[in-house]
Amino acid sequence: MGSVQEIRLAHGGGGRYTQQLIEKIFLPAFTNPQLDLLNDSAILDLPVSRIALTTDSYTVDPLFFPGGDIGRLAVCGTVNDLSVAGARPLFLSAGFILEEGFPLADLERIVESARAAAREAGVSIVTGDTKVIPHGKADKCFINTSGVGVVERDPPLESRVHEGDVLVINGFMGRHGMAVMTSRKELGFSSRIESDVAPLNHLTARMMKAAPGLHAMRDATRGGVAAVLNEMASQASLGVELTEEWLPVTEAVNGACEILGLDPLYIANEGVVVASVSADESETLLKAMKKDSRGRDSRVIGRVCREHPGRVVMRTQIGSHRIVDMLSGEQLPRIC
Amino acid sequence: MGSVQEIRLAHGGGGRYTQQLIEKIFLPAFTNPQLDLLNDSAILDLPVSRIALTTDSYTVDPLFFPGGDIGRLAVCGTVNDLSVAGARPLFLSAGFILEEGFPLADLERIVESARAAAREAGVSIVTGDTKVIPHGKADKCFINTSGVGVVERDPPLESRVHEGDVLVINGFMGRHGMAVMTSRKELGFSSRIESDVAPLNHLTARMMKAAPGLHAMRDATRGGVAAVLNEMASQASLGVELTEEWLPVTEAVNGACEILGLDPLYIANEGVVVASVSADESETLLKAMKKDSRGRDSRVIGRVCREHPGRVVMRTQIGSHRIVDMLSGEQLPRIC
Repeated sequence: MGSVQEIRLAHGGGGRYTQQLIEKIFLPAFTNPQLDLLNDSAILDLPVSRIALTTDSYTVDPLFFPGGDIGRLAVCGTVNDLSVAGARPLFLSAGFILEEGFPLADLERIVESARAAAREAGVSIVTGDTKVIPHGKADKCFINTSGVGVVERDPPLESRVHEGDVLVINGFMGRHGMAVMTSRKELGFSSRIESDVAPLNHLTARMMKAAPGLHAMRDATRGGVAAVLNEMASQASLGVELTEEWLPVTEAVNGACEILGLDPLYIANEGVVVASVSADESETLLKAMKKDSRGRDSRVIGRVCREHPGRVVMRTQIGSHRIVDMLSGEQLPRIC
Repeated sequence: MGSVQEIRLAHGGGGRYTQQLIEKIFLPAFTNPQLDLLNDSAILDLPVSRIALTTDSYTVDPLFFPGGDIGRLAVCGTVNDLSVAGARPLFLSAGFILEEGFPLADLERIVESARAAAREAGVSIVTGDTKVIPHGKADKCFINTSGVGVVERDPPLESRVHEGDVLVINGFMGRHGMAVMTSRKELGFSSRIESDVAPLNHLTARMMKAAPGLHAMRDATRGGVAAVLNEMASQASLGVELTEEWLPVTEAVNGACEILGLDPLYIANEGVVVASVSADESETLLKAMKKDSRGRDSRVIGRVCREHPGRVVMRTQIGSHRIVDMLSGEQLPRIC
């Protein structure tokens, strides 16, 4: 970009600066035949004509956190939304909203990280857009990614839990939220919790293949595992019963949560999937999940029951029961 | 939303407030079978397996301007990107980034306007996302829309101009940019220029049907008609020759441009398409365009030539020639 070291308004103007930004930063990282045409729309040939479409805006603060950054997050988050819908993610769009004055070096780091995540997931970023906002009217960098995946399973995943289903999880809860939270300077945390942000599509493909009795999958992002389970229960008008001692939480996350008065069940994850599978296939499913690098810590956390429809109830370690409600307020703003 | 009159952080938290926002504002407006499932991904059946995918973030300031608002803009802009790619727009995603304290009444107006525009275009908003940013860290409301269209023409539109092509335009230049510009309070304009923001998919479908010799279409948004023509010339390594007196500009836009020292050729449009068609089909194409409500003022503005490859040259009204260069700076920030 010559001697320009930061984003200027002209980078969003659709003229020569925009072209330079595309040619110097975006194209080299994301290169693929569709994107390289530089048309406003990418033309894509799909193997089947049933697709999944999803969108998410990412506004995480800070942009860089232990275990990832907004670029990796924007790719993985959207890949995972497609994956848990039972789709095979193929193509992503990327829309950047940048604040005037944002360092180009930071943008390059973010783009490189998005590139690496897309490669890991095996998806292509085929179209994009950049807008620049005057200084002070936006906070550094927001990214929207939308994604298209193909739904090859026929019939598609039901996305609804059944009575008697076993609920499984692939790994430890609360890592992403606590990584972002504890990396905020004002809290002065010294513990280093790494985000779990990762593409789950290879794991979910394995799960779909291993267990025809897989009824629903959800990635436990905003609102955490508690939100996902409440949605599952409410959609199917069935109850969910959790067993507290089965819930996987690392000591570091547990400790940080205790200090901040937070509950890991409500903390955002970016690499955690909760699945509901018919009881007779739960062992087969777990075995398949453990073979994947994103599923080594897979385990059962509860079951779907006919009692207390629409509610999630947890059997605590001391033998009592408590309702795991949907969060009404906002626990952690700008966590993703 | 009970007594809550403005956006709170909790509306972006993925919990109960988010659910209320979806159920009270988004669902009633955008209702369709895919969206109503409220899954993170929409599952869509397409009539063919070749698609176009596009994305754009909208950050226009002010949010409401004569002739439209950010909601209408976000739908039309993405519909038009698909349309000029020769695709039939079907499905849109909508990602809202809202500032804490943003009035819910304004959000409802925007959503209603997006709904009406989607209906006009015949597209469905099938998936969405909302993030809330603490007060002062974003400016009121940004919207990303991504769109999926189907490419039914086989082979698809070439999107590349040919030597000897005639260049046509469907209407007057610079209306959107000047509508937004002159509605900014600090300029104190009293003239009322209305934005041309409109979905062009019905017009472009007509054009595709009427003229098999239609080689390329572009919507002249950021950077205006000048940017579009420069892209066309540069991509094909051919020249473009414009005739100044053929360029359609309203008196109001011309007047405002003169006062502000701007050139209508560089001003953003949101309902203007520039098309390149083989000379022998230009009359047929124009006739078809004029039958559409968005094409009544269609006319020829120039031609594609072998001379001065990659450059746009304008024959002025006094008979001289001047180069219409790509803009290097940013003429009007946050125009779309």
